Amino acid sequence: MYTYDYLRSFCEQLFQKIGCPPGDAEIITKVLLQAELHGLGSHGMLRVKDIYALWQAGRINVTPDVRVVHETPSTAVVDGDGAIGIVAAHYSMQVAIRKAEQAGTGWVATRNSNHFGIAGYYAQMAVDHDMTGVAMTNANPLVAPTWSTSRLLGTNPIAVAIPTGSQPTFVADFATTPIARGKLDLMGKKGEKAPLGFVQDKEGNPSTDPDILKQGGAIVPLGGDYEHGSHKGYCMGALVDIFSAVFSGANFGPFVPPQVAYLPLLEESVGAGLGHFFGAMRIDAFRPASEFKAMMDKWIETFRGAKPAAGHDRVLIPGDAEREKAERIRREGITLVPAVQQDLAAIAAELAIAF
Amino acid sequence: MYTYDYLRSFCEQLFQKIGCPPGDAEIITKVLLQAELHGLGSHGMLRVKDIYALWQAGRINVTPDVRVVHETPSTAVVDGDGAIGIVAAHYSMQVAIRKAEQAGTGWVATRNSNHFGIAGYYAQMAVDHDMTGVAMTNANPLVAPTWSTSRLLGTNPIAVAIPTGSQPTFVADFATTPIARGKLDLMGKKGEKAPLGFVQDKEGNPSTDPDILKQGGAIVPLGGDYEHGSHKGYCMGALVDIFSAVFSGANFGPFVPPQVAYLPLLEESVGAGLGHFFGAMRIDAFRPASEFKAMMDKWIETFRGAKPAAGHDRVLIPGDAEREKAERIRREGITLVPAVQQDLAAIAAELAIAF
Repeated sequence: MYTYDYLRSFCEQLFQKIGCPPGDAEIITKVLLQAELHGLGSHGMLRVKDIYALWQAGRINVTPDVRVVHETPSTAVVDGDGAIGIVAAHYSMQVAIRKAEQAGTGWVATRNSNHFGIAGYYAQMAVDHDMTGVAMTNANPLVAPTWSTSRLLGTNPIAVAIPTGSQPTFVADFATTPIARGKLDLMGKKGEKAPLGFVQDKEGNPSTDPDILKQGGAIVPLGGDYEHGSHKGYCMGALVDIFSAVFSGANFGPFVPPQVAYLPLLEESVGAGLGHFFGAMRIDAFRPASEFKAMMDKWIETFRGAKPAAGHDRVLIPGDAEREKAERIRREGITLVPAVQQDLAAIAAELAIAF
Repeated sequence: MYTYDYLRSFCEQLFQKIGCPPGDAEIITKVLLQAELHGLGSHGMLRVKDIYALWQAGRINVTPDVRVVHETPSTAVVDGDGAIGIVAAHYSMQVAIRKAEQAGTGWVATRNSNHFGIAGYYAQMAVDHDMTGVAMTNANPLVAPTWSTSRLLGTNPIAVAIPTGSQPTFVADFATTPIARGKLDLMGKKGEKAPLGFVQDKEGNPSTDPDILKQGGAIVPLGGDYEHGSHKGYCMGALVDIFSAVFSGANFGPFVPPQVAYLPLLEESVGAGLGHFFGAMRIDAFRPASEFKAMMDKWIETFRGAKPAAGHDRVLIPGDAEREKAERIRREGITLVPAVQQDLAAIAAELAIAF
């Protein structure tokens, strides 16, 4: 068990040691630790080793010149210059917010980036400016479109954060698949079967094997199968891919580079690195802020007041679960699995910092 | 079987007879007939009777003063003045396109509107201007959030149309539920059971009764159940509701007014009419148009080239199915079910026009 502050100080040191400017080290640390607070270990300290290995392999740029390469009053394209995704994403969202201040909304497509951690972090940056925030990213391909066996899409998450008055911020942050890769891995390690509707085998048949991805299988889109609307989940994943990559000039779908150094770079590339897409929308670009917030409060109160189904005591509002987890984990401490602890200790030894 | 031109001429006459200006009658007709061409009878000629009955009941305005009531360089709020939804939506999308011409993108939230037909029509309007188009709407509540038995959301569709070069336009147009209301009704009429994962009973238990909505049941969000990610479908439906209603000042969720005259208006209102949300994004606000289109072509070719699963001969690209249906139906003619034919004949008699 580690305190938030201990890990923060450790990570900031670590990222500075590999050459990140102090400001970047701080932001990377914040985003990784927010994932831990939300109970999303797969996007937290687990990624330190991946980033470190990509840096060692010369596949990530710790002193990037992240910059706007094209713009209009409400849009921009950002080139991440091979940055750690978090650095490129944080910069891009700041550009979106600045655009929105002037034009009402700001929309930024980012190319030449890498894995950016949790999407919700960037969406929430806008809320501090009384703006709705949007963040999405493509990711390495694990998902087969409906009726296909080819892995062409990532789990491509979408996050939207909306300002409120007295209610906590509304934060929707979800993958466009029934399940995340990390949860499948965990089932595999525990020797459990996956429920039907998560994955298919290499011929496209439903499978309960959580390790089927290693045998040419694929994750299915949200919806599960065509009858239950998986083509709608496929549409969502496709839209995230297109907004992130075609809008920006990053690699789309099957060409998205792997986010770990132990997988070789792909032979074919159709763009620069991985892509993201961000939006910021001033709430007073639509209605007076106080009116907007009062109505969001009423929306949340209405949905919180819904009748729970049998076996449940309440209806969740997007953001509730993560916020409650974060409060508890910040109080109780962050648990790291032994493998992650060992990885961090090994890196610390190499960099001559304490862990 | 009717030709497209016969129904077009009939509808234009009909809407002019009830007082719509000729330009509005033309647009309403076009949108309803595009639904028929796409094989979506529930959004096509079936709605003529609903609109007619709402007009008779004084619940829809055929000579509305649809107008922008708030704006910034990239945003606007449109008041539909109780218009037929198609008229308010068409106007709003035009505003979004005009905003995008100047600011790169345009985003319009619309209140005081009614059912707008198929979302894809408006999204595609942007494509003619080399823009990506976005359209969404809330709708009368039939969907229960995950873990709830209260019907708080509509089937809340999202449409996104993206320009291409030599490939046909990419058009994603999908409800945020596994199934549309119309398909359930059809199963009920045929005496079929619904597959599990579409609806729940009034206690929230899975049900196979397609008529369960009449007994307090609800449609479930895309994903089906919590284990398979229905909270993600719930998030999507919630976002469509908030963008359409909270951004604009329309009624949200359970307060959305019924779209048929035989249901009474609700006692409580939290805004004006039903709400929509539209976006237009110039593709050259991100990249030179030719580059963007060439990459969209490459995206589509890549996905079209995916390996089909057993029992399928190809992988669908969003928009393929509707386009192919439209080509066939325009050639072969539009089939109307007897009930719709009778309704149209009755209205024609009342208005003294030929059918």
